[in-house]
Amino acid sequence: MYKNDLYLRALKGEIVERPPVWMMRQAGRYLPEFIKIREKYDFFTRCRTPELASEITVQPIRRYGMDAAILFSDILVIPQAMNIEVEMKPGVGPWLPNPIRNQKDLDRVIVPDVTVELDYVMNAIKASKELLNNEIPLIGFAGSPWTILCYCVQGQGSKNFDKAKEFCFTQPILAHTLLQKITTTTIAYLKEKVKAGVDAVQIFDSWGGMLSPADYQEFSWQYINQIIEALKDEVPVIAFGKGCWFALEEMANSKAAALGVDWTIKPQIARKLAGNKITLQGNMDPSRLLSPPSQIKKIVTEMIRSFGKDKYIVNLGHGILPNIPLENAKAFIDAVKEFEA
Amino acid sequence: MYKNDLYLRALKGEIVERPPVWMMRQAGRYLPEFIKIREKYDFFTRCRTPELASEITVQPIRRYGMDAAILFSDILVIPQAMNIEVEMKPGVGPWLPNPIRNQKDLDRVIVPDVTVELDYVMNAIKASKELLNNEIPLIGFAGSPWTILCYCVQGQGSKNFDKAKEFCFTQPILAHTLLQKITTTTIAYLKEKVKAGVDAVQIFDSWGGMLSPADYQEFSWQYINQIIEALKDEVPVIAFGKGCWFALEEMANSKAAALGVDWTIKPQIARKLAGNKITLQGNMDPSRLLSPPSQIKKIVTEMIRSFGKDKYIVNLGHGILPNIPLENAKAFIDAVKEFEA
Repeated sequence: MYKNDLYLRALKGEIVERPPVWMMRQAGRYLPEFIKIREKYDFFTRCRTPELASEITVQPIRRYGMDAAILFSDILVIPQAMNIEVEMKPGVGPWLPNPIRNQKDLDRVIVPDVTVELDYVMNAIKASKELLNNEIPLIGFAGSPWTILCYCVQGQGSKNFDKAKEFCFTQPILAHTLLQKITTTTIAYLKEKVKAGVDAVQIFDSWGGMLSPADYQEFSWQYINQIIEALKDEVPVIAFGKGCWFALEEMANSKAAALGVDWTIKPQIARKLAGNKITLQGNMDPSRLLSPPSQIKKIVTEMIRSFGKDKYIVNLGHGILPNIPLENAKAFIDAVKEFEA
Repeated sequence: MYKNDLYLRALKGEIVERPPVWMMRQAGRYLPEFIKIREKYDFFTRCRTPELASEITVQPIRRYGMDAAILFSDILVIPQAMNIEVEMKPGVGPWLPNPIRNQKDLDRVIVPDVTVELDYVMNAIKASKELLNNEIPLIGFAGSPWTILCYCVQGQGSKNFDKAKEFCFTQPILAHTLLQKITTTTIAYLKEKVKAGVDAVQIFDSWGGMLSPADYQEFSWQYINQIIEALKDEVPVIAFGKGCWFALEEMANSKAAALGVDWTIKPQIARKLAGNKITLQGNMDPSRLLSPPSQIKKIVTEMIRSFGKDKYIVNLGHGILPNIPLENAKAFIDAVKEFEA
């Protein structure tokens, strides 16, 4: 099906000559060819224009030859489609001028027809598939319902999402209503993405690690698991939870094809907690890409040996930072391609 | 020695009728009597005036009767004494206008005579001891060298302290020089605090959990351990590392009297990783103090049962938030006092 199907084989747990590699946020702000596009078109124009989104999606592949592409888009297209206003403020990031704080706010949140509201994403997928020309698979993604709630309630990024947690802990019924609306929308959205051609989907739970293990079960995992259950028979689902080491054992018992882990867990401990059956993905500290290329290569090689080359997808532990030198990103990818067992 | 020595007995691992309780950041911004003082005096005036610092230190004790007091002060008095300018910007927090980024910046950092530069802290301790009148012990504290470096290099609070990590990963020799200067100053500072009368010292490693396990060893733990080794024969040392679950086993093998843990680890897992010999402190999510008082009491009781009443100090998993209702803080403390094994 694909000239290079290493990524899909690793998701199935097959024996591979070397692990596949891609980088979270690989399509974006550290690439000069992306910055050129950004100078001309604002954030949502880039997301909404299939020619731009697909071009940005394949830029890192052209330069470095990763084993999978990930669609250029944003997790906040979901609340946008749900009738929650989302802006991108330069220098601030996501900005939701009318955050959800009470029943009245919640009443205006809709479960949209994603084939209408988010058709631009499906068109971006089709355009990307064309540019990729059956070379490598394409990953689609969504934020976890909890992570989306964090932005919807807080109204912007935050160190501790205190307002989001206050909402959940003081108005749990409203919180669960919002979480279920997001979950229902996300399932429909990801199913459309699969129809449009993505080969796997990743759920990003960027803020799950801000919850206690009990609260994570209540406000995050049960909704992620709904999504996994709804998608599992159509495509491999990868669940990435930043800071969610404490739930790895339970996550490994789900129908997810793979689990993403961040850099605060030793590979051996991740394997121990997740068991040896599930594929793991991660986990170099994105800041470590600031080290000299020779040191990056050493860290990557050591990381592969620690995870083991099979049932493993090399990645960062979170998104690549904007200030990473190009040759350092290259060293990361090259180290994987040069790996010898 | 003290009318209530539960806290010191728990640190020694003795059998107690109930665990002691205090709250990180208990002296401060959620208390109306503190807010009154804040309206009249700026941050560093409050820290530098023994009458104010000691009054703030005992305010929560008067209201709730915790089993230990912690001196009102700030971890950033250390870089200030080391010739690094530190301001508190309202609405922003710590602000260091001349951050440390290169050799030239580092050259102006001194290891000060703490008996001169930080004598105001020692006077605040003496004044607090007088107000406490041998009722309960007084805790002194310092930031971990890594956490102090984070502010010195970043220049302010941050979601990921990217500039601090960049400094460490691209200029490791400078980073280690700065870390050692901070460590040497901190040891002298804490020894003076002990002379002035504190009964225990806690090291706050608020940002250790942003490092990978290998980087945590290199840039944080080895310096914390130097401090523990230097102080261990004088007072009990408590090491609190937010997000540092991955290092608990090694921390438990140090000479620390107790380890603080945050809310992302289950009590049973913390005990398993730390072994059963060392006292643990923690770990309710500070945001959970927004739940209704009856639910807070249930969570606290369950937490004590999970940690076990001995070798345990009830606390939050990080500092109390400013927006916590007074009756909720009371429910937290009362639940511990009402605990029956």
